[in-house]
Amino acid sequence: MYFHALIPFKPVNPKTRLSSILTQEEREEFARIMLEDVILAVRRTGCSATLLCTSKYECRDALVAVRKEGLNEAINWALPQFHCPSLIIMSDLPMVTPGSLQRVISTKADMAIVPGLGGGTNVIFVKKPEKFHVEYYGFSFRRHLQIAEELELTVEIIDSMRMSTDVDEPADLVELMIHGHGNAREWLYEHGFTLSVEEGRVKVHRDGKEVV
Amino acid sequence: MYFHALIPFKPVNPKTRLSSILTQEEREEFARIMLEDVILAVRRTGCSATLLCTSKYECRDALVAVRKEGLNEAINWALPQFHCPSLIIMSDLPMVTPGSLQRVISTKADMAIVPGLGGGTNVIFVKKPEKFHVEYYGFSFRRHLQIAEELELTVEIIDSMRMSTDVDEPADLVELMIHGHGNAREWLYEHGFTLSVEEGRVKVHRDGKEVV
Repeated sequence: MYFHALIPFKPVNPKTRLSSILTQEEREEFARIMLEDVILAVRRTGCSATLLCTSKYECRDALVAVRKEGLNEAINWALPQFHCPSLIIMSDLPMVTPGSLQRVISTKADMAIVPGLGGGTNVIFVKKPEKFHVEYYGFSFRRHLQIAEELELTVEIIDSMRMSTDVDEPADLVELMIHGHGNAREWLYEHGFTLSVEEGRVKVHRDGKEVV
Repeated sequence: MYFHALIPFKPVNPKTRLSSILTQEEREEFARIMLEDVILAVRRTGCSATLLCTSKYECRDALVAVRKEGLNEAINWALPQFHCPSLIIMSDLPMVTPGSLQRVISTKADMAIVPGLGGGTNVIFVKKPEKFHVEYYGFSFRRHLQIAEELELTVEIIDSMRMSTDVDEPADLVELMIHGHGNAREWLYEHGFTLSVEEGRVKVHRDGKEVV
């Protein structure tokens, strides 16, 4: 089956909720490396990718469209242009694997959805993208189920820790450092982040100082 | 396939990290209802269950052993007594479903493990329990992988948000209220907990007051 992936990406000043532990330059590099891990997993499932970027960005392994409008407007502009099953996947899911994506794209339903922790939506797979539209932000998981119902689409909800855990806040680094396998995990170790166990809990330190 | 489940349970003053939002009496009731959701899922996979309780407890749907020692000692006392594939599952996983457990018990490896968020271990399935031992607390996920390696057991790691999310802290209630399906979710709604969306994020309120 041929399909296409849409990956929204913010190259400049991304991941501001990591500002307490990473400089802007580091956040831009880390976000790029997480994106590359996502692109790699997508490509290994046999899927091509288009990045929807908020500003100019160069990428060897994906098409790039620069869109100045908001996230929803950009995706809803792109969806009707794909006449094949489409994946919408966030760029901050560096724990994603080809195997976990395979579970998504092999759904028998009209679409599959992976919720994010906290009520968001991390991955959508929709077989007829030209009929669908997205509404991210807030309780978007519920909203996307409602949209599917309005459009009379069957939905499979995929149960995956790897894809439900987006890297937004310092606490999310614990999961990435434990379960990651790609360059984003390596980047953290190379930049002085370590795991330790204190008082029965796993903590993250950077250069000896506790960050989580 | 016949197999047996071990479920550790603390009937008195459990879930102290929920003390800021639930009284002791409420925590004991909520813990019991989460346990019942877990037992139901376990039984629906065709599995019998033994509770390892820290104090006297009555349960219609499972055998009960009262063990005064610590968690690891109690489980390691019980494991050699089961001469069939065994599941060790925590009682605070009310989002577990028979379908998600099916993924665990149908592993082709010698054992399967579901990590908890933050480095813990939420579910272990081991085909030869008499050879295995557990070491919970701290970074137990890594420790259990090491034990498997020492014993030369093959391991499958199961990727499941439903089973990786244990209900420990107020923030965990968000996932249960969104993705739960059993009595624990219902109990929260009956006791005044509600979800709302504020500033683009899903929040939990109780009787109008924000708790998460």
